[in-house]
Amino acid sequence: MEVDRNGLEVLDRHECLRLLALATLGRIGFTSGALPTVLPINFHLDGERILVRTGRGSKVDAALQNAVVAFEVDDFDPIYHSGWSVTLTGVATEVSDPAELDAAREKPIARWAPAGDEALVAISTELLSGRRITPSS
Amino acid sequence: MEVDRNGLEVLDRHECLRLLALATLGRIGFTSGALPTVLPINFHLDGERILVRTGRGSKVDAALQNAVVAFEVDDFDPIYHSGWSVTLTGVATEVSDPAELDAAREKPIARWAPAGDEALVAISTELLSGRRITPSS
Repeated sequence: MEVDRNGLEVLDRHECLRLLALATLGRIGFTSGALPTVLPINFHLDGERILVRTGRGSKVDAALQNAVVAFEVDDFDPIYHSGWSVTLTGVATEVSDPAELDAAREKPIARWAPAGDEALVAISTELLSGRRITPSS
Repeated sequence: MEVDRNGLEVLDRHECLRLLALATLGRIGFTSGALPTVLPINFHLDGERILVRTGRGSKVDAALQNAVVAFEVDDFDPIYHSGWSVTLTGVATEVSDPAELDAAREKPIARWAPAGDEALVAISTELLSGRRITPSS
């Protein structure tokens, strides 16, 4: 087991993708108006990319047009002092191919916000890293 | 009740601070090596600023030296489709005043990572915004 300088277990790419496949809510970090922003967003892991829906014309939608973004998912248990987090940095690109849009309609990507026209955005996962803390850490 | 273009309730500064005071785990968004990153981190709301501990000399520590960062806290219930999120953008500054460091020792700021020398970092909350989704949204 690889351990980082902070004493946390380092997760490999395979384990990171496995954990991402189990989750549905992540946080996306991007730059908007030259300032860093982090927002919660529902997602679906589609192969090795992240799919999210954004309200078309929204601040998030504008910020995700071919931009480099960060995406984070975690699950911590404060009682048992255990948990994991996965962070990736990737390029966000709107999905416009009709066949891909059709396929994505079948996928469970919720949106918290109830209203509005939507864009489907894919985020690549080239840079993927994860950590796990265990009670024995 | 103010509602945004996505149909979510807009939370005022007072309500955002009240929610931040209830939570202990947030996600910090910053730039490291010119790339956006988001990481989970424990925090404590001290008045109107966020206090976090970082491993001295770590990637996070280096990125938080007088940098503008984003900080996000949320609590969602997927069953009842309810929840809230608070996002802020502020300046991160290391706390070096001995009296402040002494006072902070009394505060409940956990670190998940078990090892290492620590720095105390304060994040200002000038730019604070929050949203709430309710089952009736």
